[in-house]
Amino acid sequence: MKRVVIIGGGFGGIYAAKSMKKLPVEVKLIDRRNFHLFQPFLYQVATGGLSSGDIAQPIRTILRRNKNTEVIQAEVVDIDPERKKIIMRDGEMSYDKLVISTGSSHHYFGHEDWAQKAPSLKTVENALDIRRRILLAFEAAERESDPVEREAWLTFLIVGAGPTGVELSGTLGELARKTLRDEFRNFNPESAKIMLVEGLESALPGYPDKLSRKAERALKKRGVTVRTGTMVTEIDGNKVTLTARDDSKEKILARTIVWAAGVKASNLGHKLAERANIEINKSGQVKVRSDLTVPDYPDIFVIGDLAYALDRQGEPLPGLGAVAMQQGRYVARSIKRQMKRKRIKPFRYWDRGKMAFIGLNAAIVDISRLHFNGFLGWLFWVFVHIYFLIGFNNKLLVLTQWAWNYFTRKRGARLIIGSKHFPVLTREADEQPQITEYEPTEERV
Amino acid sequence: MKRVVIIGGGFGGIYAAKSMKKLPVEVKLIDRRNFHLFQPFLYQVATGGLSSGDIAQPIRTILRRNKNTEVIQAEVVDIDPERKKIIMRDGEMSYDKLVISTGSSHHYFGHEDWAQKAPSLKTVENALDIRRRILLAFEAAERESDPVEREAWLTFLIVGAGPTGVELSGTLGELARKTLRDEFRNFNPESAKIMLVEGLESALPGYPDKLSRKAERALKKRGVTVRTGTMVTEIDGNKVTLTARDDSKEKILARTIVWAAGVKASNLGHKLAERANIEINKSGQVKVRSDLTVPDYPDIFVIGDLAYALDRQGEPLPGLGAVAMQQGRYVARSIKRQMKRKRIKPFRYWDRGKMAFIGLNAAIVDISRLHFNGFLGWLFWVFVHIYFLIGFNNKLLVLTQWAWNYFTRKRGARLIIGSKHFPVLTREADEQPQITEYEPTEERV
Repeated sequence: MKRVVIIGGGFGGIYAAKSMKKLPVEVKLIDRRNFHLFQPFLYQVATGGLSSGDIAQPIRTILRRNKNTEVIQAEVVDIDPERKKIIMRDGEMSYDKLVISTGSSHHYFGHEDWAQKAPSLKTVENALDIRRRILLAFEAAERESDPVEREAWLTFLIVGAGPTGVELSGTLGELARKTLRDEFRNFNPESAKIMLVEGLESALPGYPDKLSRKAERALKKRGVTVRTGTMVTEIDGNKVTLTARDDSKEKILARTIVWAAGVKASNLGHKLAERANIEINKSGQVKVRSDLTVPDYPDIFVIGDLAYALDRQGEPLPGLGAVAMQQGRYVARSIKRQMKRKRIKPFRYWDRGKMAFIGLNAAIVDISRLHFNGFLGWLFWVFVHIYFLIGFNNKLLVLTQWAWNYFTRKRGARLIIGSKHFPVLTREADEQPQITEYEPTEERV
Repeated sequence: MKRVVIIGGGFGGIYAAKSMKKLPVEVKLIDRRNFHLFQPFLYQVATGGLSSGDIAQPIRTILRRNKNTEVIQAEVVDIDPERKKIIMRDGEMSYDKLVISTGSSHHYFGHEDWAQKAPSLKTVENALDIRRRILLAFEAAERESDPVEREAWLTFLIVGAGPTGVELSGTLGELARKTLRDEFRNFNPESAKIMLVEGLESALPGYPDKLSRKAERALKKRGVTVRTGTMVTEIDGNKVTLTARDDSKEKILARTIVWAAGVKASNLGHKLAERANIEINKSGQVKVRSDLTVPDYPDIFVIGDLAYALDRQGEPLPGLGAVAMQQGRYVARSIKRQMKRKRIKPFRYWDRGKMAFIGLNAAIVDISRLHFNGFLGWLFWVFVHIYFLIGFNNKLLVLTQWAWNYFTRKRGARLIIGSKHFPVLTREADEQPQITEYEPTEERV
């Protein structure tokens, strides 16, 4: 039996595997993690609205009825297209067909050292780290008596106004203005400054202008300051330098910075490009043919965020879960047709629109001729997203949690955990102001 | 206004603070963590049934309506009863009345080095660590081809058959036999060996004999081997030596060990004993008077697991959440009566019984003349515990989650997270067999 190896258990990989259920092939799905993650909800984990368990599901559970599929937790470090093998950290495996769907992370554009100070929101660990930083900042502000320092604790800078940045800053605004109300005695959480910085000309670049403007208004209502046409050009401790288009500079004191800009494709793209002599773009995405295979290697498919695929108009497809899902299904169909020696049509993306969540009663929906926003947009967003918690048995639970959050404005998952969970206020000149550096003495007995 | 300082936000501290809502005092509640933890459900987090957010609630949220109360996240490292001050890592604070409720952890009886190999279940981090070890063991077994090694991965040893050990091993049995069914291709999860080892003569020591025997039977039905009268005397890598009463020894190969034995009171008891020249017992608990104050210091109360308090019969009170809660309320009333110069009656524990959860349809309930077990016990256990999710706004959510787990036998929160989330199988002679040592290369960009 032919062996199909799928690398990556994101939207693309899971849909590919699911769609191969009845094919007479042996499927191996390899991922570094044991779970599929519903990334569109990661910002909810980062702001304490959902627990990580709510948005993750073991890949084995999703695919347990696919008797032809074995799920392997391992890391693929290289691909050898000549020998038709993948190389894992602890072994090799041969394939007949290969589907690479390892996704992307955020791009620091040469400032990789900023990752420590300004984490991005791509993994569960990132989300829990950001949650800890946000909540610790409020804890520190409560204990801080110096007004300048307190303001620095209460200043939150989000870099990049794509959907992630918009969703995160809107929710953070609600956290400060609604959820935390009455919980502190030494300051008013409403005084928190939330800044959303975007290099391009508007929030939600790529959305229709009208919706971008509506998003900006909705954010403003939630206390978020949106700065478009502005780049972060330096991060030095808690001093951040913003540079506008006219080259004017401004320094901001912010203790909490989250990076939500740029796209950097998974490193396997580079590896494949070296070995197979194919093109990648400057984000590291692999240029694929119209059938999503790699030039000269019709047995290797690249899908999802790792692929640089063009639509009929020659425009690149957006980095959306919906694209990856459709590509996963397409690959399964293609392999079936290849096996039957049937002709394969090029991949076509069926655009079901774009959405962004700003907060309670506010979401931006752009579906071809249909534009929603406000409460209707919010409702639509919630239902569509929960519908797409794929393979998830816990849709009902997440919906209950959302309804709960909606009616109470509570965010239940506000734990500060991890080894560095503790605020210690130091008065020294503090170049790298990490409140979180301290491990408590006794607890880990 | 008099200042009451409460150290610790567990059952005792929270109930004390809540009960002081209307007293004309200034309350400061200090905890190292920003959240109150419902510890009786920790084993559910360790086995993937609940997320940590489900069993924790920010202390600020619980006490937000207590306008006289300030919540401070800080670590208390010492107490100076002469100057009436507590010493935090980053400052001091004076008190008029002090309530110490910092609880206990498990006791390794001089083998503190075992903590790394056999973690105990006391903090959220512990629970997530144990969850990771359990799930990684199954992942490693799936990739392991050597049958002896695979059996070591599939052997789980739980040390101590108190409620925590019983609950954890019963749930682990169900995880292997029900939840994981159909998810692996290279072994049958039912073949997992789960051993519960107890030094005393029966499971659930302290419960009536009849219930202990019922618990043992219920565990056996779930595939758990119960070994009473047996001690762990050595842990060397993955080789564990068990010693029976007759001094016969047996070596077990087990990759996953969880420690659920002994009680070791928080270190503040030792500090207080040094400073105030009072007695502590060998678990480090502070001997308190019948009004829960410390001899010679009528302004210092010690409650909960940290206190060694006797009942009317001269027996020590059990280490239960219910005791701590009642003591917290009692302290608030005592302070009120002290302020009014009224006579204070000794603390009396109103025993509402003991319970232990073994698995679906099985729990052990011991309420004075009322003994339940089986399904009725289970139902009772679930309702009583959810009722006592104190100050929790998410009772409904947790109940939904339980109902869900019950009907589907799924456990939704089965994520392997943390920096060491990855199984790498090595073939070297492996003295400290840590599958979990490896950090993936790229993910944390």
